[in-house]
Amino acid sequence: MSQAQAAAADVGAGLETVSTARSHGGVQGVYRHASAATGTTMTFSVFVPEHAPGERLPVIWYLSGLTCTHANVTDKGEFRAACARRRVIFVAPDTSPRGQDVPDDDAWDFGQGAGFYVDATQAPWSANYRMWRYVTEELPALVAASFPIDMARQGITGHSMGGHGALTIALTYPDRFRSVSAFAPIVAPTQVPWGRALHRYLGDDPAAKRRHDAVALIEDGARVAELLVDQGDADIFLSEQLRPELLQRACADAGIALDLRMQPGYDHSYLFVSTFMADHIAWHAARLG
Amino acid sequence: MSQAQAAAADVGAGLETVSTARSHGGVQGVYRHASAATGTTMTFSVFVPEHAPGERLPVIWYLSGLTCTHANVTDKGEFRAACARRRVIFVAPDTSPRGQDVPDDDAWDFGQGAGFYVDATQAPWSANYRMWRYVTEELPALVAASFPIDMARQGITGHSMGGHGALTIALTYPDRFRSVSAFAPIVAPTQVPWGRALHRYLGDDPAAKRRHDAVALIEDGARVAELLVDQGDADIFLSEQLRPELLQRACADAGIALDLRMQPGYDHSYLFVSTFMADHIAWHAARLG
Repeated sequence: MSQAQAAAADVGAGLETVSTARSHGGVQGVYRHASAATGTTMTFSVFVPEHAPGERLPVIWYLSGLTCTHANVTDKGEFRAACARRRVIFVAPDTSPRGQDVPDDDAWDFGQGAGFYVDATQAPWSANYRMWRYVTEELPALVAASFPIDMARQGITGHSMGGHGALTIALTYPDRFRSVSAFAPIVAPTQVPWGRALHRYLGDDPAAKRRHDAVALIEDGARVAELLVDQGDADIFLSEQLRPELLQRACADAGIALDLRMQPGYDHSYLFVSTFMADHIAWHAARLG
Repeated sequence: MSQAQAAAADVGAGLETVSTARSHGGVQGVYRHASAATGTTMTFSVFVPEHAPGERLPVIWYLSGLTCTHANVTDKGEFRAACARRRVIFVAPDTSPRGQDVPDDDAWDFGQGAGFYVDATQAPWSANYRMWRYVTEELPALVAASFPIDMARQGITGHSMGGHGALTIALTYPDRFRSVSAFAPIVAPTQVPWGRALHRYLGDDPAAKRRHDAVALIEDGARVAELLVDQGDADIFLSEQLRPELLQRACADAGIALDLRMQPGYDHSYLFVSTFMADHIAWHAARLG
């Protein structure tokens, strides 16, 4: 366990190691820390492939979907073999603040497990639901200080609500990310029922909501060079919530090279995500150098 | 979802489809049925790779360890990519009968989740804990009738208590299995603390216990041609419960070609199993033709 122990020891002040284990030649770790952004304890996972002492590797951020924690992709994502082969670090944050004192909702698609990667401005959500700041500022600083990541080589991806997060973050910070992809992403929350969450977190301000809608961002001038999106055609959320044709049209109008792959027979689950995970990691790795 | 629906429709009378989803080009299904062997409802999973109509594929049986159900390996085993590539069906049974009316024990390593792949002879266990008959007779007949399996090409593997099951079953039915491997198996239950379970299930009969102890079976003349075993050297159960050196000695004395691979830094978890899963599937596939 020497490599795992070394990884645990490398972790900087403020990070607590929940678990580490050797896997696929590297170390899969789970960590937690007190988050200033959310005011809660946040948990995330990091896979670090085998590497030379002092060497820094590129990173892929993976943002998870509704109801998920870091654990879903960590258990079911089948990313480690590909990350080990391509020598890429894989970071998986949680999807919201959590805890008894954190406001929640009975709905499965709002509140805890459903942060939508925004900084809420509306009470009672604004106190803790600051996932945008968490995943774009606080967590990057923390992992850059604690893991052997070359922050000049970052890619980002995600699933469903996490695909929404990946697309909106990459479109907002195009210089930070060399690559962006998504699995069955929410592409236009302001045009679909799940977008009600943006209304509850952000209130009536249409401009604020457009800043968290990938299609609107593109319409308003945001650009990335290219996008890879996989979407199952047996996904029960396809026609009402996901609507990849809206992204397709926006990308066509904007001259963004979108590779939208409709995958016949695939649903919305990790049995879909894991099938195409190695493809996405190879695609990112080719762009991360 | 046509392939998944076809797989569900193919399922024979007596099998209920819990779920099917397309994954890695094939179909991952979960099924349940009323078991005559255990007197309970039993659940198992089957992955069927893409194949031609009417074609029958070889099968790998995967037996799980203490506390597990079919779901642990189905979620975390990372077997589907390799099974799809090698065109092998993967069947994962549960580890014991379950239910409110099934006798249980407060210990995590006895009773429900810990059937040890024996037919219990002692009350109150003997009524339901008949996992030997279940995995060697009832379930093979059921899956042979319901899935496109070539039963002349079977391999078997397992993890921990499931490694014990795989080894004892293959040593008992050497003509049925063309290949056998294990991940961190219990190899000599009569010599380690976990073997107390055999005593409670099988009573005082030493011969009955030797029939469920891989090392004893080999000492008593049982043979397979070759064995692949992976074992992490950071496994907390290594020196007290697993003791692969006992299998090594028995195989050396018996002329069985054992490839025992001590894997530095690996623990007992699915982060270990999943790392070497593709290796095992390739090894089996080469022998299953």
